[in-house]
Amino acid sequence: MSTAALARELAAVRDFLPCATPTAWLEQAAANLPLLLIDHANCEKKAAGNALSMMYRYVDRPALLQRLSRFAREELRHFEQVHALMLARGIAYAPLTASRYAAGLRALVATREPERLVDSLLVSAVVEARSCERFAGLVDVLPEDVASLYRGLLASEARHFRNYLTLAREVDAGRVAARLPELLATEARLVTEPDCAFRFHSGPVAADVTNGRQERVKVPASS
Amino acid sequence: MSTAALARELAAVRDFLPCATPTAWLEQAAANLPLLLIDHANCEKKAAGNALSMMYRYVDRPALLQRLSRFAREELRHFEQVHALMLARGIAYAPLTASRYAAGLRALVATREPERLVDSLLVSAVVEARSCERFAGLVDVLPEDVASLYRGLLASEARHFRNYLTLAREVDAGRVAARLPELLATEARLVTEPDCAFRFHSGPVAADVTNGRQERVKVPASS
Repeated sequence: MSTAALARELAAVRDFLPCATPTAWLEQAAANLPLLLIDHANCEKKAAGNALSMMYRYVDRPALLQRLSRFAREELRHFEQVHALMLARGIAYAPLTASRYAAGLRALVATREPERLVDSLLVSAVVEARSCERFAGLVDVLPEDVASLYRGLLASEARHFRNYLTLAREVDAGRVAARLPELLATEARLVTEPDCAFRFHSGPVAADVTNGRQERVKVPASS
Repeated sequence: MSTAALARELAAVRDFLPCATPTAWLEQAAANLPLLLIDHANCEKKAAGNALSMMYRYVDRPALLQRLSRFAREELRHFEQVHALMLARGIAYAPLTASRYAAGLRALVATREPERLVDSLLVSAVVEARSCERFAGLVDVLPEDVASLYRGLLASEARHFRNYLTLAREVDAGRVAARLPELLATEARLVTEPDCAFRFHSGPVAADVTNGRQERVKVPASS
């Protein structure tokens, strides 16, 4: 993708999102690189798992199945890339608790079909958009090896955002228009309000949390 | 892969398995093509899901994680291929109950680690070997479009079989040697004893089941 095309994609993502990632979160990301990478690896697995679970639920929608399967393959490829970077940096893959972010958004998904499908696709669109926006912000504050990977992932996330949004509108454009305001308002709170644990999609963590109670992640002495 | 190399792979798979697929099953497969393809599509999703769930469980094994992620991507690619063939043949993707096969094998997996890991890898090796052997048998009895796809999948399944077996032996070769006889004896029963539903990994179904109580799958009038 050309630089101009990528800039347009990124502008569309920023237009869609309710707010920018707080500067405090970007600073915490730079200061917690192992934690960021581990949680990012987890996010890629979860995105693949989420696409796969939709592939079980919606067997009667052929075009959706094919699209979800390709999304899942791309997320797995991204997992391999970020995991390889963790290995190169000697970061041990410690288990982490889940972020409040995905659970906070998924709580807004309807339990009845076809509303559940539309809402699920919309939540995926929102998550992909936020990931894209964070990658763009992180490129400027992270070491070159990580920045280089994130520059490469930007375009995929922007494309996934667009595709999930289109899929949701194809099922029910009216519901998309009706549900987006509440989803985006919740998303804004989740990424701006003080969070209890630093994660790829978290809000900035409060000072007393970063000061000692933050998870420790094993890293080699040199990093 | 050359024809000679593929023949060697297939010979290794047949040596490993406890018995050949019964002729009655192959005849039932040819007579129940929509059911075969739908269950095959489900198997590819399950294989991907199984690899993904191991990727959550064994984050402390970097080489395993990378391998499982690539396996999952390949299974998803196979899903897309068999699903595209279903679409080309106008086969509607009906929900199916699970086969007794996978559950019967998974029941033998230990609950304690690291035995659970070894057993899980071994079960995957057995399932991949059986899939490979069935593809080879099906190539001779199915229409050319399906046979052509299955000829293409043969080599992947043989490679997955070898890789899963190697991974299991790398964790604990002694346990592999100790567990294989029981696993294979169970597998032989599952694929040869009369089954209650025709599936990709089922035994042959009893005559009274194929005679009326078999699931109906919507197919266009022409097929």
